[in-house]
Amino acid sequence: MQAMISERMERQLDFIVVIDALKDITRQSITTGSRRQENDAEHSWHLAVMAMILSEYAEDQTIDIAKVISMVLIHDLVEIYAGDTYCYDEKGYEDKAEREQEAADRLFNMLPEDQAQRMMSLWQEFEEMETKEAAFAATLDRFQPLLLNYNTEGHTWQRPGITSEKVLKRTEIAKEKVPQLYEYIERLIQRSIERGMLKP
Amino acid sequence: MQAMISERMERQLDFIVVIDALKDITRQSITTGSRRQENDAEHSWHLAVMAMILSEYAEDQTIDIAKVISMVLIHDLVEIYAGDTYCYDEKGYEDKAEREQEAADRLFNMLPEDQAQRMMSLWQEFEEMETKEAAFAATLDRFQPLLLNYNTEGHTWQRPGITSEKVLKRTEIAKEKVPQLYEYIERLIQRSIERGMLKP
Repeated sequence: MQAMISERMERQLDFIVVIDALKDITRQSITTGSRRQENDAEHSWHLAVMAMILSEYAEDQTIDIAKVISMVLIHDLVEIYAGDTYCYDEKGYEDKAEREQEAADRLFNMLPEDQAQRMMSLWQEFEEMETKEAAFAATLDRFQPLLLNYNTEGHTWQRPGITSEKVLKRTEIAKEKVPQLYEYIERLIQRSIERGMLKP
Repeated sequence: MQAMISERMERQLDFIVVIDALKDITRQSITTGSRRQENDAEHSWHLAVMAMILSEYAEDQTIDIAKVISMVLIHDLVEIYAGDTYCYDEKGYEDKAEREQEAADRLFNMLPEDQAQRMMSLWQEFEEMETKEAAFAATLDRFQPLLLNYNTEGHTWQRPGITSEKVLKRTEIAKEKVPQLYEYIERLIQRSIERGMLKP
């Protein structure tokens, strides 16, 4: 009964247990029901389902949606070691890239080399935001907190210094790459201002 | 600036907001770090990443892993309306199928018809556990709680009536469809018994 388990499989399963920690990395957005802070695992799941449903709005319809889904599923894993950096935290952004690269090296190299390289490359592609898949993934990543904010009376928008201009600027990538969704975002921001949830 | 948003997009985005509720459907397993109950959104995310990493162990290597990933991402959505049924709750299982079918009709029909049908069909395929993709998805769904239990001193195994025989039986699908993973499961259960986390 004592079977031989390969070192490869051991490494893969160790990784799968370590990434359970993503469920404890909290974000700024709150959930629409229980109104508690969302965590990175939930956020990643939400983006993946959004990718399944919204793929028809990508400007370039040769987009590989399976790749977008893989990308959003792993895009925040580095935060297990690097922590979450709030998108309007200018100080936190100064060393974000360096902290996250170290975290990626440490985390992804737990996996067998071929898979470590695949994860690293997917994550880097996401960070660079240049390919059509990365642009679509980034659009979802920036749009999803808006949707949560809109449905929780502008929760994170209540902080000092957050204006509609800043929020719109952060979703600018959608304008060219997912134009119909950008129209939706503009309307959502307009309504949020009208309802006093977001400062103009 | 007031753009025309299609009814189709409205339905898709309403759905995306409604499924935020999956983050509040708690499960029996606890997370390895904070030791709180895991929720369905986190669980679905975990399964999707596991599918990315463990696909090489599917007995039938013609398996469509992108489909497995889509399947696990949506497999628990019906619980938003039907609730989570604990896998060893025999009473809860009596009307589980009926409750979940009603929930699926209600939830998936929020989407445009083509997408509603796709979701319904993916979910039904998962439930029937017959295709190679559904068998692999089911294996992950049954293996992941084991992995959490093993790493939280057998948390849910402490309840009355839970034995290694029951736990092993629940993962039986892996024996034929993902045999190398089944060997790992057998070893994990053996060790759990030796360490007093699970009754033989």
